Amino acid sequence: MRIVLIGAGNLATQLGTALVRRGEDVVQVFSRTEASASALAGKLRCEAVTDLDAVCRDAELYIVALKDSALSALAASIVKGREQALFVHTAGSLPMSVWEGIAPRHGVFYPMQTFSKQREVDFSRIPVFIEANNADDCRRLKALASFLSSNVREADSAQRRALHLAAVFACNFTNHMYALSAHLLAEAGLPFDSMLPLIDETAAKVHVLSPSQAQTGPAIRYDENVIGKHLDALASHPEWQDLYERISKSIHNDKLRSETN
Amino acid sequence: MRIVLIGAGNLATQLGTALVRRGEDVVQVFSRTEASASALAGKLRCEAVTDLDAVCRDAELYIVALKDSALSALAASIVKGREQALFVHTAGSLPMSVWEGIAPRHGVFYPMQTFSKQREVDFSRIPVFIEANNADDCRRLKALASFLSSNVREADSAQRRALHLAAVFACNFTNHMYALSAHLLAEAGLPFDSMLPLIDETAAKVHVLSPSQAQTGPAIRYDENVIGKHLDALASHPEWQDLYERISKSIHNDKLRSETN
Repeated sequence: MRIVLIGAGNLATQLGTALVRRGEDVVQVFSRTEASASALAGKLRCEAVTDLDAVCRDAELYIVALKDSALSALAASIVKGREQALFVHTAGSLPMSVWEGIAPRHGVFYPMQTFSKQREVDFSRIPVFIEANNADDCRRLKALASFLSSNVREADSAQRRALHLAAVFACNFTNHMYALSAHLLAEAGLPFDSMLPLIDETAAKVHVLSPSQAQTGPAIRYDENVIGKHLDALASHPEWQDLYERISKSIHNDKLRSETN
Repeated sequence: MRIVLIGAGNLATQLGTALVRRGEDVVQVFSRTEASASALAGKLRCEAVTDLDAVCRDAELYIVALKDSALSALAASIVKGREQALFVHTAGSLPMSVWEGIAPRHGVFYPMQTFSKQREVDFSRIPVFIEANNADDCRRLKALASFLSSNVREADSAQRRALHLAAVFACNFTNHMYALSAHLLAEAGLPFDSMLPLIDETAAKVHVLSPSQAQTGPAIRYDENVIGKHLDALASHPEWQDLYERISKSIHNDKLRSETN
């Protein structure tokens, strides 16, 4: 399948790498930023394009991995003159309907993972959620996704919106808790790597216990003595102190709710 | 070494199990709650005790794994008549000085991990932080800890306080982000296990990138379009909506700080 990647960010980089590794024919990478287009095209050994008019018209699949706002602004220009092809975006947060009235054949290819350019991920374990506006293209996208991952499911736009919101909590917000932990350790002259066994075990536990069952620590019993000392220790960081107090209360409320259910 | 465990909670259970597995001589478990004392003593094949007067007087080491408030209330009674022995507590949040004027030989044995009774942990990877009021006992505690773990370090009370606070962020608060994610998925009729590859990768990433480098998602670029939609989706959960907004702002502020540094 002749594929064009529109976008050269973290997701496009990891997805393009996985596609090429599986023998798919990625023919072009488009990005308005020449350096980004060239870097990814070089990696995938294909052509870099910075002008939409130079994007080929005979690909079968255009994978659009742009920021939501850029996608909305560019969708019509991307499709124009290529109406026979299949267009998908990769965003958890955008409904499939962004393509309506623009591309006759369209869908969504959402790999739910955190992608950084510096770190190659094992695509085979990434859940990929597929949606398309016709059954043939849905089959086609599922077949392509199944080349890359053993974890492919269909999800409509409402489910994908819920997945994306849940992923922000489980990934981005979790990572911020790591970041605040790292800052606090750095201030005390302690290395972050002492926290890694705890981080790993916290993630491993929710494979076998529900997160609510797995919860431990001062907040679950609202231990005012410990919590008070921690709030004092955070006095020079009002933003983190405020988060500490609100998250602790939310943990305690979660516990109370589970007890009354 | 003849050891008595004072306390029969999650930490005492996992620590006692690891000690017995390594051939240490745990002779008694004390808990005021008979069921807890019996359950753990049964597991460790030793005596269960619910009355402090029945705690033996000839052990070499008393490991006190009680809630902070219970420790403060009971410390004097635990030590009385056993002043020749070494007394340690296991709490990240309490200074070693809680033993001052009570036990001539004292210290801290702090395994930094999240312990649940239902899940046995691999003690060999757990960082154990040691402190004692004399060099001989410090050596003794380090030797004991080294039987259990390959990751033993000395830490004074100020460092341990910082570790414990950082651990609350990296473990308890992280786990709460998982819990909120699970609740949101359940409301959409989606299984939590679809989130596990993302959770695992988020933890794995910070082994090779700093958490600030590893951050992705709408908050880092403060994408008001996506954030606004997510806040709308959380309208029926004001507590979670408030956390979403505050954590997103904190992520964005972290990014701004790192750019100005």
